[in-house]
Amino acid sequence: MPRQRPFLSDNAATIHPRLWEAMRAADSPDSPYDGDRLSAALDERFSELFGRECAAIWIATGTAANCLALATMVQPHGGVVCHEEAHIEVDEGGAPGFYLHGAKLMLASGEGAKLTPADIAAVIDPIRPDVHQVQPHAIAITQASEYGRAYRPHELAALGAFAKERGLGLHMDGARFANAVAFLGGSAADAAGPCDTLAFGCIKNGGMSAEALVLFDPAQAELVKYRRKRAGHLQCKGRYQAAQVLAMLEGDLWLENARAANAAAAEIAGACGERLMHPVEANELFVRLTPGERESLRAQGFEFYDWGADAARFVTAWNTPQDDALALAQAVANL
Amino acid sequence: MPRQRPFLSDNAATIHPRLWEAMRAADSPDSPYDGDRLSAALDERFSELFGRECAAIWIATGTAANCLALATMVQPHGGVVCHEEAHIEVDEGGAPGFYLHGAKLMLASGEGAKLTPADIAAVIDPIRPDVHQVQPHAIAITQASEYGRAYRPHELAALGAFAKERGLGLHMDGARFANAVAFLGGSAADAAGPCDTLAFGCIKNGGMSAEALVLFDPAQAELVKYRRKRAGHLQCKGRYQAAQVLAMLEGDLWLENARAANAAAAEIAGACGERLMHPVEANELFVRLTPGERESLRAQGFEFYDWGADAARFVTAWNTPQDDALALAQAVANL
Amino acid sequence: MPRQRPFLSDNAATIHPRLWEAMRAADSPDSPYDGDRLSAALDERFSELFGRECAAIWIATGTAANCLALATMVQPHGGVVCHEEAHIEVDEGGAPGFYLHGAKLMLASGEGAKLTPADIAAVIDPIRPDVHQVQPHAIAITQASEYGRAYRPHELAALGAFAKERGLGLHMDGARFANAVAFLGGSAADAAGPCDTLAFGCIKNGGMSAEALVLFDPAQAELVKYRRKRAGHLQCKGRYQAAQVLAMLEGDLWLENARAANAAAAEIAGACGERLMHPVEANELFVRLTPGERESLRAQGFEFYDWGADAARFVTAWNTPQDDALALAQAVANL
Amino acid sequence: MPRQRPFLSDNAATIHPRLWEAMRAADSPDSPYDGDRLSAALDERFSELFGRECAAIWIATGTAANCLALATMVQPHGGVVCHEEAHIEVDEGGAPGFYLHGAKLMLASGEGAKLTPADIAAVIDPIRPDVHQVQPHAIAITQASEYGRAYRPHELAALGAFAKERGLGLHMDGARFANAVAFLGGSAADAAGPCDTLAFGCIKNGGMSAEALVLFDPAQAELVKYRRKRAGHLQCKGRYQAAQVLAMLEGDLWLENARAANAAAAEIAGACGERLMHPVEANELFVRLTPGERESLRAQGFEFYDWGADAARFVTAWNTPQDDALALAQAVANL
Repeated sequence: MPRQRPFLSDNAATIHPRLWEAMRAADSPDSPYDGDRLSAALDERFSELFGRECAAIWIATGTAANCLALATMVQPHGGVVCHEEAHIEVDEGGAPGFYLHGAKLMLASGEGAKLTPADIAAVIDPIRPDVHQVQPHAIAITQASEYGRAYRPHELAALGAFAKERGLGLHMDGARFANAVAFLGGSAADAAGPCDTLAFGCIKNGGMSAEALVLFDPAQAELVKYRRKRAGHLQCKGRYQAAQVLAMLEGDLWLENARAANAAAAEIAGACGERLMHPVEANELFVRLTPGERESLRAQGFEFYDWGADAARFVTAWNTPQDDALALAQAVANL
Repeated sequence: MPRQRPFLSDNAATIHPRLWEAMRAADSPDSPYDGDRLSAALDERFSELFGRECAAIWIATGTAANCLALATMVQPHGGVVCHEEAHIEVDEGGAPGFYLHGAKLMLASGEGAKLTPADIAAVIDPIRPDVHQVQPHAIAITQASEYGRAYRPHELAALGAFAKERGLGLHMDGARFANAVAFLGGSAADAAGPCDTLAFGCIKNGGMSAEALVLFDPAQAELVKYRRKRAGHLQCKGRYQAAQVLAMLEGDLWLENARAANAAAAEIAGACGERLMHPVEANELFVRLTPGERESLRAQGFEFYDWGADAARFVTAWNTPQDDALALAQAVANL
Repeated sequence: MPRQRPFLSDNAATIHPRLWEAMRAADSPDSPYDGDRLSAALDERFSELFGRECAAIWIATGTAANCLALATMVQPHGGVVCHEEAHIEVDEGGAPGFYLHGAKLMLASGEGAKLTPADIAAVIDPIRPDVHQVQPHAIAITQASEYGRAYRPHELAALGAFAKERGLGLHMDGARFANAVAFLGGSAADAAGPCDTLAFGCIKNGGMSAEALVLFDPAQAELVKYRRKRAGHLQCKGRYQAAQVLAMLEGDLWLENARAANAAAAEIAGACGERLMHPVEANELFVRLTPGERESLRAQGFEFYDWGADAARFVTAWNTPQDDALALAQAVANL
Repeated sequence: MPRQRPFLSDNAATIHPRLWEAMRAADSPDSPYDGDRLSAALDERFSELFGRECAAIWIATGTAANCLALATMVQPHGGVVCHEEAHIEVDEGGAPGFYLHGAKLMLASGEGAKLTPADIAAVIDPIRPDVHQVQPHAIAITQASEYGRAYRPHELAALGAFAKERGLGLHMDGARFANAVAFLGGSAADAAGPCDTLAFGCIKNGGMSAEALVLFDPAQAELVKYRRKRAGHLQCKGRYQAAQVLAMLEGDLWLENARAANAAAAEIAGACGERLMHPVEANELFVRLTPGERESLRAQGFEFYDWGADAARFVTAWNTPQDDALALAQAVANL
């Protein structure tokens, strides 16, 4: 039997050694909850990263990060415009409905699971401004998108201007934000654009159990901290959470890991040619493959999810062996 | 300056080495969320521990565990009877209101933060059975209680009978369940009594970020799993959560740790005599101390919380050095 | 200026004289809330009407009736399949999100705003049965539909069988249930089919401020009554609410009114020919009309809503003067 | 058998004839919901009454009015300080938990079911300003109180100053506001004091199904209107609701009715002497009566509720016959 080569998802990859070290280094007494020195360092560290004052807290999952962020902008009687294939709509078990107390997700279409102002306008312009219809309060986008597509700075600027004009908040789900930054090549600030809140992903990028929620309006931190506690997400021993996030930022480990994942994806993409359903801009590949082709790849040990009847999704991770990527590239080329 | 000797709380203590080992041992690829082999082992492991079939899931905090448990028994229009000093009422930031969609906490008085059927009846008997008044749906108790008192098996049996008679669910907040079991000397099942759900605490007992929620009606597991996801508590890399819980059970580490904490508390209690506000049955001491006495203890390096104007709370942990316990006992005796 | 002839909606029509009489007749002391003799008569009266035991309560709006009904079948973490143009999705201000504590509406397409089992299956079959995706708990249909289409008994039977097979509740929004019954010509039971709950509309049919919520499983009445109170919908002087509903049933006034409205609609429909977008089965007409044609009709005093760019909606009511209906028919014919 | 003389409550009294007239006068076509001329007149009419600009909407119950008002001031993670015997705590079926999405009621004690700044401070000063404890966002008081006691203008001024100092909203439940104004003898503005929102009661004062919610910050009207719709409280035929409220204000009918009820209560109070548990300032009497005395009164046809083991509550209404009041006064005097 061939060795298994996992391309199922980056969400179950092992933990980067420097995070283990950081957690072990945190294993001495300190204040509970987020009163420790590590948790206290997050605001400054993320303010440096983004070049503007922000507040940042650790949180165990991207789902919770997205929802707590949206709670700063969306009233229970309002709505959030997102892509119809957005994670918050499709894969978070209704968490936005819970955290936002029944607010509505308003589904837009857009190429590559990205949204433009026009895509959003197509959804909200027909809404009558009366009490019978739920009004939008915010926009949520994903960087990189659910199809691994990165928003360019000018696209983000356009979305920010649109959001401002319409009085809407702008949230960015950054479960794979690092991969987008690695692809775009600019700064973290460039890839975040004018968003109000950012769920800064670490877990898919070599982390264990901590994401960061970044609030570009630090005045929102108080509300978010009360809501985090209320959601049972304020862990007693927060220093182990903060340690993960800080280690990820230290020496730009987050970018290093993302570059590795992206490189592996690019390696494979090179062999896929016309099979690619979407340009590969991060660490996900959506590849047209017949059932027989998929069977053949699986017989060679490659693990991946089907994507509908005639395609497959491959995801690389920070620790995807170059050998695995090359092998997959070769195997696809050989089909 | 004297060395600091921490008795603030067990909630910030360091992690037991065997949990670190277990987490590291889990650091190889496996399925995400709770699809891994470790998470899958929890049901059986807890069924063995309690001698009856149950379902068990990991969850990051006791707050979330308590709330998810209560969600199996309490409708949004119902209520939960708990002690007026219960953690869910006083220290969980309104989490029950969030998770139970506005259900009401109904506050009872009871000696030592414990409740008897009579205490509960005093609260619910005056409630008119009409729609104008919120009706109770469940009872929540804490083992050991917020004052470190343990429910005896016959007390639990009485509560179970009362709950059954009144058609109420019975939940046990077991943040310090291990300490209660260690004190009572019987089995885990004895200390859980006929409760329907148990938040089995690990974090205050040497864990890092995982508690276990035990459902004695396994049929409730499905609902709880949907609600856990919806609350953003289904972590991607659940195997590191499960590893902590399993390591805690392995070789009865949970009891070993609790016995150590209890022993340290008993050591100190012996020196407190009439100063004790409550019998010491777990790892918490509530000690009458004047402001001057507290100042004197702090000057000697002891860290603890004031408990009102004329008392202090001391909490021991799994790793409280015997030397610290002896020193505190001596210092109190010397006052 | 021509006399105004209103075809905007049936929802603002005046009150039928027999309802005024009934309310005045109720104007003597009785017990508050729903403890009065009139409220107490609803269960029996509706059980007679539907030929099976049911419970019935008054409620001020169809929005609240729909939501309270759905609350008997849908958990906060679940979903409700409804037509994408259903009133609960489009025109109830997010009320289902509020009453169902964040449950999700799952939008299906279907001809004439009606749904078939296949339409529903198209939405729910792709849902993975895992915690990451919201699972359906109920189906909501509208009789007559938002386009004035009536479900036939065999269609309802098929939906009921499908709902049962999938373990889903089945709710019927009957804001214009009377019009459907009048059209179908059968019994109320035929038009309700095997639905579990029915929001039995009165207000659009000559009522003032009371609908009836009918529960075909009377055991659900307790939950609904607690939820009605909790929603601030339990009026002190319920006898004036019950009086309206009972007067509507008395001597089949509800059918008499609906027949009058349907007859007026049929009169107009006869003149519309190919202009009709949907067969006219109740009291609503959706008519293709150019902007110029609409302008011409408005200049003649006809009031109605535009329906997109090239059509208009006309609604008749229990008290639409025959003269108005004939005039509109003539005017359309003259275009 | 003696004629029944009802003193159970004012909440089931018949409707004042002028409200019937007003509703009948509204029985001609107008715009639906609150788009009609009568609904549109409420803002101006209440602005005149209170001598400052305010917004006002009709709403079917005091429960909904209270909750919608509180929703303008209280976040889901916050709390509302109210008297432990306040209607929102005791008799509204948990509606605040529903409308405020799980916010907490914080119960204060106070003489006569009234609250002073000191009463409130006793509840909120011990709350630690950290995320583990729910923070107060608003205060809710009742004018007249649940024991029929009226807040004097200087008491309201003190509460307003306290609320402002603490950053809390101030809501007034005015189910019997008219009775308080009638007792105090000043203006409506005097009796409302500096409260931010007022549930202006009509139903207990001769109304049928409409209260008014008055917002002294008109900017809050938009939020309240969205929430009213979302709660299923936006009735189609709002003109019949508005007509009731306007008729109540017309010619100060609200005061006339309240004076009649108060006068009847005062008549009875004169005979009660030392039996009175509370001074009678509105239309409720709490009277010490032994079981035997209560039996005797009931045998004479008087209807009323027991108030604990040794007292009874009598409530007069706008239409309590003078003869009934005199008879009750005589009967009590004869005991």
